[in-house]
Amino acid sequence: MAEFTPSQAADLWSVAEHMADAAGAAILPHFRSAHLDTDNKLTTGFDPVTIADRAAETAMRDVLADLRPDDGILGEEYGTVDGTSGLTWVLDPIDGTRSFISGTPTWGVLIALSDANGPFMGMIDQPYVGERFMGGLGRSHWTGPGRNAPLGTKSTTALSEATLFSTFPEIGTKDQHTAFQRVARAVKLTRYGCDCYAYALLAAGQIDLVIEAGLNAYDVQAPIAVIQSAGGVVTDWEGRPAHEGGTILAAATPDLHARTLALLKG
Amino acid sequence: MAEFTPSQAADLWSVAEHMADAAGAAILPHFRSAHLDTDNKLTTGFDPVTIADRAAETAMRDVLADLRPDDGILGEEYGTVDGTSGLTWVLDPIDGTRSFISGTPTWGVLIALSDANGPFMGMIDQPYVGERFMGGLGRSHWTGPGRNAPLGTKSTTALSEATLFSTFPEIGTKDQHTAFQRVARAVKLTRYGCDCYAYALLAAGQIDLVIEAGLNAYDVQAPIAVIQSAGGVVTDWEGRPAHEGGTILAAATPDLHARTLALLKG
Repeated sequence: MAEFTPSQAADLWSVAEHMADAAGAAILPHFRSAHLDTDNKLTTGFDPVTIADRAAETAMRDVLADLRPDDGILGEEYGTVDGTSGLTWVLDPIDGTRSFISGTPTWGVLIALSDANGPFMGMIDQPYVGERFMGGLGRSHWTGPGRNAPLGTKSTTALSEATLFSTFPEIGTKDQHTAFQRVARAVKLTRYGCDCYAYALLAAGQIDLVIEAGLNAYDVQAPIAVIQSAGGVVTDWEGRPAHEGGTILAAATPDLHARTLALLKG
Repeated sequence: MAEFTPSQAADLWSVAEHMADAAGAAILPHFRSAHLDTDNKLTTGFDPVTIADRAAETAMRDVLADLRPDDGILGEEYGTVDGTSGLTWVLDPIDGTRSFISGTPTWGVLIALSDANGPFMGMIDQPYVGERFMGGLGRSHWTGPGRNAPLGTKSTTALSEATLFSTFPEIGTKDQHTAFQRVARAVKLTRYGCDCYAYALLAAGQIDLVIEAGLNAYDVQAPIAVIQSAGGVVTDWEGRPAHEGGTILAAATPDLHARTLALLKG
């Protein structure tokens, strides 16, 4: 990855925190508002987008235009801006739009900074609860109501002791669903419905595995940086780098990752 | 239900708020603590109980011993105390223990007050986020970070427009699962994993349906009072009163309730 002095790293974190603050301010008036304006991006399937989503990405792009005009941007709502610095900010203004439109506080603002090798700094921000999970460039900690604690994954190595999260039980293709079910049957507890929040819980040492499919680069880059800073392992279901999206296997330890990967492969 | 003057109602709400404050103070030091102490109440299945669960119920019982010594108590952890007032406090110190041990902020403290006809006052409290959903005895509102808003269910009447929540996709017996799936296939969106928090979201006008099975009286009495104060309908899967536990169908409107009930019955 690119090398940064402590002062440069602190500046980059300051930019990220400004972006998260701006995104949260744009989103919160719309969270649990009485008449949420949603539409469907896809003509098949259910992919709601809200005014909040677009306003938050615009707010984050405004911060970058002001403070980091030479960096590239890859955002969910407004596509790609090529930069000249070799660095790209990867943004998902509201990851978990289904959580958002249901009023659940488990959606998040995702901000990552990447170079040609992938993300090296990431933030998962939950502005309604007031939580921020940050990893990379010298940071690995989270803040929340009355909390400021280091990130750090659990030491779990056995599947039979693991808690697994995934967003939907109907994960992926038929074959992917079958592979997922092999893992779900082997773990202690499987829970659904948390979107990006599950990655934050894994980095904070609360759960052991997150398995998902059909993700985009902007869904995964911030979680990857956060989890790696906390000692966890993130790849796709073949063990390859996952930062371009697709399938995701995030595990608390290398041993648990290896065992889960073997089970996913059948 | 029992009749109360406005002053008596305010006193009862004050007791409930004291209880919730005491429960939250007992629980929060244990939420996301590094080494959560859990054990299994059942020899088959997974039913974790934490120190926090017991400490919170003890704290609530202490408040009642001090302020309402003549009332009865039905609590998850420490059983039944018969009272002489004809009123019973129904307590679940941590509803959603699986959420709790996973670090998810969607568990809650449940407090209801009931007479021979069932609950007439209820609170769903989420102390980590700082949210309180309250219904009955003249109240129907919720407070949260930067929020203080009336409760009120959505006006949804069509299943095809409804968002459905349930805690597990593996709900109930085989027949119950089949019945649930008929509804899940008919709605717009099904989400899992929220325990009592789903009832709060229904009362706050965010979602339309909650369907569950295998519940206890202390799981449902507070949600019933909160949802009824907000204009929603709660029964079991046969359309009967649900406050003794078992199956639960909670709906935003009478029309949606009737359509869902018909589908559950096949």
